[in-house]
Amino acid sequence: MRSTTRNFQRYYNPDASDMIRMDTNTNVLGSNPAAAKFLASQKMNINDYPNTYSDGLRDALAELYSMERENFVVGSGSDEILDITFKTFTEWDDKVVVPVPSYTLYDYFVNMNGGIAESVDLTDDFQLSVDDMLAPKGKMIIMPSPNNPTGNSFRQKDIEEILERSRGIVIVDEAYGEYSGSSMIPKVNEFDNLIVMRTFSKAYAMAGLRIGYGVSNKNAADMMNCVKIPYSLNILSEGAAIAAVKDQEFIRRSVELVNKNRRPLSDGLKKLGFEPFPSDSNFILAKAPVDHTALTDGLKKKGILIRDFGSKRRTENCVRTTVGTEELNSLLLKSTAEVLNELRM
Amino acid sequence: MRSTTRNFQRYYNPDASDMIRMDTNTNVLGSNPAAAKFLASQKMNINDYPNTYSDGLRDALAELYSMERENFVVGSGSDEILDITFKTFTEWDDKVVVPVPSYTLYDYFVNMNGGIAESVDLTDDFQLSVDDMLAPKGKMIIMPSPNNPTGNSFRQKDIEEILERSRGIVIVDEAYGEYSGSSMIPKVNEFDNLIVMRTFSKAYAMAGLRIGYGVSNKNAADMMNCVKIPYSLNILSEGAAIAAVKDQEFIRRSVELVNKNRRPLSDGLKKLGFEPFPSDSNFILAKAPVDHTALTDGLKKKGILIRDFGSKRRTENCVRTTVGTEELNSLLLKSTAEVLNELRM
Repeated sequence: MRSTTRNFQRYYNPDASDMIRMDTNTNVLGSNPAAAKFLASQKMNINDYPNTYSDGLRDALAELYSMERENFVVGSGSDEILDITFKTFTEWDDKVVVPVPSYTLYDYFVNMNGGIAESVDLTDDFQLSVDDMLAPKGKMIIMPSPNNPTGNSFRQKDIEEILERSRGIVIVDEAYGEYSGSSMIPKVNEFDNLIVMRTFSKAYAMAGLRIGYGVSNKNAADMMNCVKIPYSLNILSEGAAIAAVKDQEFIRRSVELVNKNRRPLSDGLKKLGFEPFPSDSNFILAKAPVDHTALTDGLKKKGILIRDFGSKRRTENCVRTTVGTEELNSLLLKSTAEVLNELRM
Repeated sequence: MRSTTRNFQRYYNPDASDMIRMDTNTNVLGSNPAAAKFLASQKMNINDYPNTYSDGLRDALAELYSMERENFVVGSGSDEILDITFKTFTEWDDKVVVPVPSYTLYDYFVNMNGGIAESVDLTDDFQLSVDDMLAPKGKMIIMPSPNNPTGNSFRQKDIEEILERSRGIVIVDEAYGEYSGSSMIPKVNEFDNLIVMRTFSKAYAMAGLRIGYGVSNKNAADMMNCVKIPYSLNILSEGAAIAAVKDQEFIRRSVELVNKNRRPLSDGLKKLGFEPFPSDSNFILAKAPVDHTALTDGLKKKGILIRDFGSKRRTENCVRTTVGTEELNSLLLKSTAEVLNELRM
């Protein structure tokens, strides 16, 4: 096997039949209605190849952001976009800087493409240390903002300082950008080393269709389109994504729901003895008042999955839960209280 | 840009609105009916992530071939499977042997993943020269059988000799395997360096949904599943593929249609002065009796696209056409005759 992929293991893949899933940070409103309507009504010719570069979806995104088709690259999930950036901008053994804690799959993508992941610790309040991020002189720097699993956004001035002082490509992964309300997308023409990634798996409620996109200056986007696998996005996902982009009302409703329910959930966790961290996303990371494994196992027995980060450095004994509807959050708090009682008996 | 991808250009992407497409070798019977029925009736929750390794489709394929789920890796098009094999089995600068002429995207995938493509000529009758294929001592050898764009299958004894004598991975791309009726899939447990690839884009008539798979011994398949992007296949494509696998009657009808119409099309081309090559696929490569560009341009003006290979070494002045229905083939022959007349006036 490739030297950098030799130790790869299967990805997080829980048996989740009949479980309430608070572990995936998807949209608790359920499937995107415009996308579902498109899929129910369509009679597409599935025998023909898709448009090679998903021009239809790139046009819809260009309209949404008042930019141009040539600023976009579209793929089968933002995971594919990430894969494309490595194939476009890195050589074997190149260093790629990844903050800790952040998205678990970044290291995996770096290694998959023959690179070396350089882990750089965030500060105690989970913000970027600009000097530390620049110290390894990475060929590429990847950061999610809002960050996953911590939930907070990074300061825009820190991101911009990194963009100015780095000679490499800087990827800002805005998988949860709809929730934070701030974005680096308007800056792609100002910083020619900036690539912003977004996904349809979270606020758009379409994780099952695997759709993501990158935004950058036209030159970088053209390079990435040349390197990506032709027509990697299937026609149904592309059509559904176009319908969803044109229905921004659903996105507004989804963000409002999270804004309304996040604080009460955080307060509820605090009352139970958790230490929740500030979040600009649709999920909350919190230090548990009991052993993390006992807690997540206890919730699992009650049919609720949350994500356990308790064994990882910098998130010791922490768990992460999606912000649910009022009902889901009440159920989660009630079940958690029961588990805590059972553990203390 | 990555040194090996610096010269990449956009992929073949003709303006094909309202054209009759004899250039893509898709199924001329139109969209897969079982897949279309599944899509019309489904009410899936598109908000949830797909199964991480597409277990449902891997189970359906295991049943079709009387093998086990663990022999399969599933991806977004067989292009993704090819990409995975590089990430699993090759290092930077590794040599990968590719026969000439064969599928144009192989070189692209080798370079995309930092490898070096070693071109090895086929014999005059487009068969494998076993010694020549082994001479570069490639870390990997890729071959399509039936071959594209030539249409013929390679001899099984040659493929097996290469498998025995090569120390590297040998990929047999059976994109058109349903048409030839022969396959290396039953041999994956005999040769532990064999990976067979198949697609749903040709006989299955589902190119728009981007589905492909690899078959190998369980050990190699497990390595590839560990390296692939998790849940890269979307839920609609997976569901449609499962329905299509269970409807082998459509595949039989599709293959029969090609078997019935291939010879008359080849004979018709011969009568017009072409030199068609023997085919085990749903397409025919033929040397044109006039300049290849003038011919394809002339047909394009009449609304028919065929694929032009006339500028490439070993297929000088050759064009490739899909085998159509009786009506499509008559139209192609009639239009070709008209173009030839116009060119000779």
